[in-house]
Amino acid sequence: MSKQFNDHFQRIVEEITSNYIEEELFLRRNKLELPNRSSIIEIINDFRRIMFPGYFGTEKLDDTLAPYYVGQKLASIYEHLKVQVELALSYKKGVKDDSVKQEAEELCVAFLNEIPRIQKIILTDIQAAYDGDPAAGNKEQVIFSYPGLYAVFVYRMAHELYIRNVPFIPRIMTEYAHSRTGIDINAGAVIGKYFFIDHGTGVVIGETTTIGDNVKLFQGVTLGALSTRGGQLLAGVKRHPTIEDNVTIYSGATILGGDTVIGADSVIGGNAFITKSIPPKTKVSIKNPELR
Amino acid sequence: MSKQFNDHFQRIVEEITSNYIEEELFLRRNKLELPNRSSIIEIINDFRRIMFPGYFGTEKLDDTLAPYYVGQKLASIYEHLKVQVELALSYKKGVKDDSVKQEAEELCVAFLNEIPRIQKIILTDIQAAYDGDPAAGNKEQVIFSYPGLYAVFVYRMAHELYIRNVPFIPRIMTEYAHSRTGIDINAGAVIGKYFFIDHGTGVVIGETTTIGDNVKLFQGVTLGALSTRGGQLLAGVKRHPTIEDNVTIYSGATILGGDTVIGADSVIGGNAFITKSIPPKTKVSIKNPELR
Amino acid sequence: MSKQFNDHFQRIVEEITSNYIEEELFLRRNKLELPNRSSIIEIINDFRRIMFPGYFGTEKLDDTLAPYYVGQKLASIYEHLKVQVELALSYKKGVKDDSVKQEAEELCVAFLNEIPRIQKIILTDIQAAYDGDPAAGNKEQVIFSYPGLYAVFVYRMAHELYIRNVPFIPRIMTEYAHSRTGIDINAGAVIGKYFFIDHGTGVVIGETTTIGDNVKLFQGVTLGALSTRGGQLLAGVKRHPTIEDNVTIYSGATILGGDTVIGADSVIGGNAFITKSIPPKTKVSIKNPELR
Amino acid sequence: MSKQFNDHFQRIVEEITSNYIEEELFLRRNKLELPNRSSIIEIINDFRRIMFPGYFGTEKLDDTLAPYYVGQKLASIYEHLKVQVELALSYKKGVKDDSVKQEAEELCVAFLNEIPRIQKIILTDIQAAYDGDPAAGNKEQVIFSYPGLYAVFVYRMAHELYIRNVPFIPRIMTEYAHSRTGIDINAGAVIGKYFFIDHGTGVVIGETTTIGDNVKLFQGVTLGALSTRGGQLLAGVKRHPTIEDNVTIYSGATILGGDTVIGADSVIGGNAFITKSIPPKTKVSIKNPELR
Amino acid sequence: MSKQFNDHFQRIVEEITSNYIEEELFLRRNKLELPNRSSIIEIINDFRRIMFPGYFGTEKLDDTLAPYYVGQKLASIYEHLKVQVELALSYKKGVKDDSVKQEAEELCVAFLNEIPRIQKIILTDIQAAYDGDPAAGNKEQVIFSYPGLYAVFVYRMAHELYIRNVPFIPRIMTEYAHSRTGIDINAGAVIGKYFFIDHGTGVVIGETTTIGDNVKLFQGVTLGALSTRGGQLLAGVKRHPTIEDNVTIYSGATILGGDTVIGADSVIGGNAFITKSIPPKTKVSIKNPELR
Amino acid sequence: MSKQFNDHFQRIVEEITSNYIEEELFLRRNKLELPNRSSIIEIINDFRRIMFPGYFGTEKLDDTLAPYYVGQKLASIYEHLKVQVELALSYKKGVKDDSVKQEAEELCVAFLNEIPRIQKIILTDIQAAYDGDPAAGNKEQVIFSYPGLYAVFVYRMAHELYIRNVPFIPRIMTEYAHSRTGIDINAGAVIGKYFFIDHGTGVVIGETTTIGDNVKLFQGVTLGALSTRGGQLLAGVKRHPTIEDNVTIYSGATILGGDTVIGADSVIGGNAFITKSIPPKTKVSIKNPELR
Repeated sequence: MSKQFNDHFQRIVEEITSNYIEEELFLRRNKLELPNRSSIIEIINDFRRIMFPGYFGTEKLDDTLAPYYVGQKLASIYEHLKVQVELALSYKKGVKDDSVKQEAEELCVAFLNEIPRIQKIILTDIQAAYDGDPAAGNKEQVIFSYPGLYAVFVYRMAHELYIRNVPFIPRIMTEYAHSRTGIDINAGAVIGKYFFIDHGTGVVIGETTTIGDNVKLFQGVTLGALSTRGGQLLAGVKRHPTIEDNVTIYSGATILGGDTVIGADSVIGGNAFITKSIPPKTKVSIKNPELR
Repeated sequence: MSKQFNDHFQRIVEEITSNYIEEELFLRRNKLELPNRSSIIEIINDFRRIMFPGYFGTEKLDDTLAPYYVGQKLASIYEHLKVQVELALSYKKGVKDDSVKQEAEELCVAFLNEIPRIQKIILTDIQAAYDGDPAAGNKEQVIFSYPGLYAVFVYRMAHELYIRNVPFIPRIMTEYAHSRTGIDINAGAVIGKYFFIDHGTGVVIGETTTIGDNVKLFQGVTLGALSTRGGQLLAGVKRHPTIEDNVTIYSGATILGGDTVIGADSVIGGNAFITKSIPPKTKVSIKNPELR
Repeated sequence: MSKQFNDHFQRIVEEITSNYIEEELFLRRNKLELPNRSSIIEIINDFRRIMFPGYFGTEKLDDTLAPYYVGQKLASIYEHLKVQVELALSYKKGVKDDSVKQEAEELCVAFLNEIPRIQKIILTDIQAAYDGDPAAGNKEQVIFSYPGLYAVFVYRMAHELYIRNVPFIPRIMTEYAHSRTGIDINAGAVIGKYFFIDHGTGVVIGETTTIGDNVKLFQGVTLGALSTRGGQLLAGVKRHPTIEDNVTIYSGATILGGDTVIGADSVIGGNAFITKSIPPKTKVSIKNPELR
Repeated sequence: MSKQFNDHFQRIVEEITSNYIEEELFLRRNKLELPNRSSIIEIINDFRRIMFPGYFGTEKLDDTLAPYYVGQKLASIYEHLKVQVELALSYKKGVKDDSVKQEAEELCVAFLNEIPRIQKIILTDIQAAYDGDPAAGNKEQVIFSYPGLYAVFVYRMAHELYIRNVPFIPRIMTEYAHSRTGIDINAGAVIGKYFFIDHGTGVVIGETTTIGDNVKLFQGVTLGALSTRGGQLLAGVKRHPTIEDNVTIYSGATILGGDTVIGADSVIGGNAFITKSIPPKTKVSIKNPELR
Repeated sequence: MSKQFNDHFQRIVEEITSNYIEEELFLRRNKLELPNRSSIIEIINDFRRIMFPGYFGTEKLDDTLAPYYVGQKLASIYEHLKVQVELALSYKKGVKDDSVKQEAEELCVAFLNEIPRIQKIILTDIQAAYDGDPAAGNKEQVIFSYPGLYAVFVYRMAHELYIRNVPFIPRIMTEYAHSRTGIDINAGAVIGKYFFIDHGTGVVIGETTTIGDNVKLFQGVTLGALSTRGGQLLAGVKRHPTIEDNVTIYSGATILGGDTVIGADSVIGGNAFITKSIPPKTKVSIKNPELR
Repeated sequence: MSKQFNDHFQRIVEEITSNYIEEELFLRRNKLELPNRSSIIEIINDFRRIMFPGYFGTEKLDDTLAPYYVGQKLASIYEHLKVQVELALSYKKGVKDDSVKQEAEELCVAFLNEIPRIQKIILTDIQAAYDGDPAAGNKEQVIFSYPGLYAVFVYRMAHELYIRNVPFIPRIMTEYAHSRTGIDINAGAVIGKYFFIDHGTGVVIGETTTIGDNVKLFQGVTLGALSTRGGQLLAGVKRHPTIEDNVTIYSGATILGGDTVIGADSVIGGNAFITKSIPPKTKVSIKNPELR
């Protein structure tokens, strides 16, 4: 390299280092390690393999082999999740000690406990996808290929951590699913059984959304807040809508606001824009455009 | 681990195993192996390298070396696809025997036969992208970076398997492209030459859609069904629109229904919501919003 | 293989080879190598690790170790970027010689020079995300998980190459971010500080867009061209809108045209469709749909 | 490439292809697939992890988790070994049918059955290494680092396949260990408990060797045949020595011949060259060299 | 699987689990983690890259970039080694606490301190190899390809840990080099400058060996103990020979015993077998064999 | 890190950097890149796959597919080898220009030309192994597992580069084989057809050795120089023995000296130490040791 390059180079290194030092998010953090994104993605993959045996790995199970497979995968999920939960809790609290370790272990045992129940709920989601899409062909296809199922599966897992106040990890999980599917479900949302999102790209489901059973969404549906001008002051406030049982919301519809309730058995037409409650059994649709 | 953990652990293993046993999608399947998603993605990658030599690998070809490269890649695609097609057919039919193997081989030879023709059509798609996007710069850029081209390329490949009734694989292919691009083209759609999707995120093209030559779509366009309430009863029924030649559909437009025909040379404006046919040479647009 | 297969096989190889020979994009190119997409993605990853130390790697830095880390990563970025820039320039110019090599080196030094400044701007983007999203929790979460931040980070890097007329690479970078986030920001756009895109799937920001400081976009927003009918004739022409400071644009809004200016401090409601300028401090919204 | 290169290239391709066609080991084989060396190495690795839990993986086992770990690893070994044994048997017999598949399965079940016993014997080998080497420090070190233990462990596994007449695989296994350790133990040798090879490089133990309990070898020891002039005619004939219990053989000693018996409790000195039997409790050594 | 297989399977799992429980080396260990062999091999690789910049990586260094490279690699070695040393110490002591962590850190700082000195000594080893082998061609070749240099390089690193009483790791390091080169140098040996081992396969250098400056060994040389019958009672006792300065030992020679001293400037001929001291400036050789 | 650590750290970095600057092998080299060891190992692997189709890859070839496979592998070997040969030549000459590039290309074409002939010779080596080892079972086993065949195969390839004066690469190749097999054949040796090395660990064949047809060696055989005291002055001088046709040399035998000729049809017994010529048809053996 030339002399000139060398001078540049050393100056740039100094400037970046100096950025690091000035910004509390970098070297000035409390010296505690952050959770590891790659490791969390691995946990999602393991979780998927325990949830859908025979679909995403090469294992060949029968009644004899199944419990060994389950036990081994479960132990693996437990070990890896425990490490990440401990990192997340320690970072949040600014301290790493045995009580945090203990808390992480208890959270993970509690999480494992929910897996059989989650699995049963996901089977209802698969049923809903199969019943709701003429192009599905069979349920195996749904497990293999449906982005809606994938996003909901990850959400259901992340939600269990969210309600136990695990920091960072639920969001890393759902954003990973968002990245793969274009479906952004906040881990805080509460969602009932038989839930199906068709196509799904562009769907947004906000943190304080409540969704009943048998709800079906199409691509581009937003269940959002009216305004986020309040910023961090709004944290924890119910600001996303409530969707009751048996509602279908077609593509591109937007439903906003924490007081907005879409009554049971309603159908919201494509591209509808709704900021007020809709009574049960209502059909809402927009008019066709003018031709010119 | 503590005694308490151990008891929990064994119970959870039993519950999950018991879920496996009760649910016919898992251990109670017909013991036949499903196709392998990773392997199918590898086939897409190989296919891309044969389609666009010099763009996604490190090979340096000239007239002498090209046929060896093609032969070798083709043999590789054939070998791997044959295995997956055989798995898919066997699973669907519930039996794995020599006649299935034979059928898989014939399907794959038929598929290989189409590759030179597909390649020529994709060259028209590249031309359409270059002509249609002022930001393109050159055609190489289109091959390298355009998600619309990628999604269409995968669709054209998957479509050849779809029309030959290969189960699972076409959908796994197009959903993989969907995951990478946000563009969801069902492998059943019929699409003409010089097809271009710009930006593309959120585009949905349903299973029974028909699209002519020289059609251009923007992001967020839905070519969908009016309602999917009929579920599996609608399988095979024409339920998505027909788009004739030389139509442009701007971003966010929604066109629904199996009887809906967008006549040739029409332009559909952004965010338009259409559920009835439009005559040829029509411009459709929505009014600007009120200001308040 | 059967005799019949063999005949087919050799014919297919010949047809594909003959496609290669006829099409100037393949063997008939000027024999110069194209940039390597995988290598460019690696550069983005390295860049992210220098930008956000401690978040995406396993390094544990303090004041002593930081400069070595920075120097080493910077040298790596420089080495790899130089190779790719040289390939891109050579390909564009149709010649590979020492003057191109020299130009590539100068471009890369100029690029390195901007890194400390870019890093400071990205810290404003993080602040904007934290302030703007009640669900954020903390800034670390934003760095880890927010697709909007990721897309903007990649854009800011690519933009520095775009304005220095480096071919191919800026687009490969932003399309990679597009693929991961559903957010499509053309590297040519000019974007101010404190920029935040929430959720983000489906956002499109065109090549000649100008955006001021403190602007916030939601998912599905298009900042596009009125028509691209002109194709390559429009290359370089201002055809995308201008958004002034402190504007918020809600989900699904579409703003088109090179003469369209959204005045400072305005708020554009969800699904709005705008093709004309809006004065400062204006609120634009669409009416709720009819119920039926 | 130049015209001249092209001509060369095509001719070379033809010559090599023609070598393939002429030589029965290549294309003219019976079209059956050979076992896969990489897969066999993976089986060795899995086997090592079941044999020495906690040493070569990251698993953390306790009484609760251990059986799941064992079951899962065992199932994995069974699945992979079955495939390889079936390939090996089919290739040898020139036919691939259900009876071969059945035979492979039975062989693998029989093999699994021996694992607990093999494990107990290997624990005696570890004890022998620890007792025999003042530099060992502890038994964990022996498991981690001793090439002698590694070679014996692989031999004990391969021997179980050898005695069941599985072709190819035993030799691939022991040659893999040979490659890593320089210790060449033919899978056909019969070796007792508490066997220890110190340092080990250059040790050769021939196919028809018999070794008692508590035997210790040092580097460079050959237990070989007097002459192999007979070639394949000697296949199956006892042509390597017998070493009785409690014998120590120091480095570089050579013991040859199928009739040669080293009596129990003997010590063979370094570099000794022996082609006749040695009575029990004998010490054999060579004289020191002359100085000049 | 058949019923019969299932019964076998569960019994085998139980037997292996029961082996685990009975044997204190497995589940009954003190629950502390062992060092990780793969991680230690990575440290060796990093160490090699800092020792021989430009030979085993793709870095391109000059005076400006070199310190960043060194600092970064050094920090990496420090981080990884610290973890492994802490594991090794904890395991040995049966306890993992802050004092062990502290000790590990101090050991690693002490180790880093020696690196510049070790590097200078290794440069003398390279010189010796170049001077001693007519086939060397140049010193770069020695660095790249000579197994003798590799084994000595790893030994010199491991020795620094050995003399600081780090358990497990020195042996894992030298056995890794043994596996790659066939040269087994115990980390406890004390070896002077300008040391060269030519070809090297089969060389054994015992734990209490002392070697002066300018010594040259050929393949198959053993510097060993007279007898290891004493087993662990001999731990720590000087039981391997002393080789003074400027000695050459030709291939296959064996020198045994802790009291055996090979005087300075001596030459030991091939295959010599020596168990007594040799005065300085002596040539020892064996007679040619009889012909018959 | 503590203040003390930081001071140490920076000093160590400076000392190592200063070692780099002082030593001409590092930063002060002529700025030319060295060949890449990993890349050369990849070439060996590719070469092995072209030499033994169907054994080390997953390809399934027949008469139709074989030429494509060969052409593709050959092109790959050519491309990669050309890069490495150019690096090696440039480094040696201290200049990188078009004439070096041209020379590299010509060398590589010449090398490719030899491949069909080398392949035929290696088939004789396989035959010799099969004929010479009663434990072989079949020729496939020899290809799969015999370290002697592997070392000879690599030697034959490296030799073609050695005789064309390619620096570095031949030695890197044969040392790689040495590392895997314990067999050290210098690429300069001249070796006839039907060559077989059984077991092989510890075999050394020096640079100026000449070996006729039908020669068989066992483990631990040295064909070496009498003394290497002359160091680099001996470069190029014939200093290793000549072995005529049909000679067998048993394990541990040492044959030294450039004037030493082992006459045709001789047999050299195990552990023999020979420094003078032996007439044809001679049997040489050493006496059995005394018993005491």
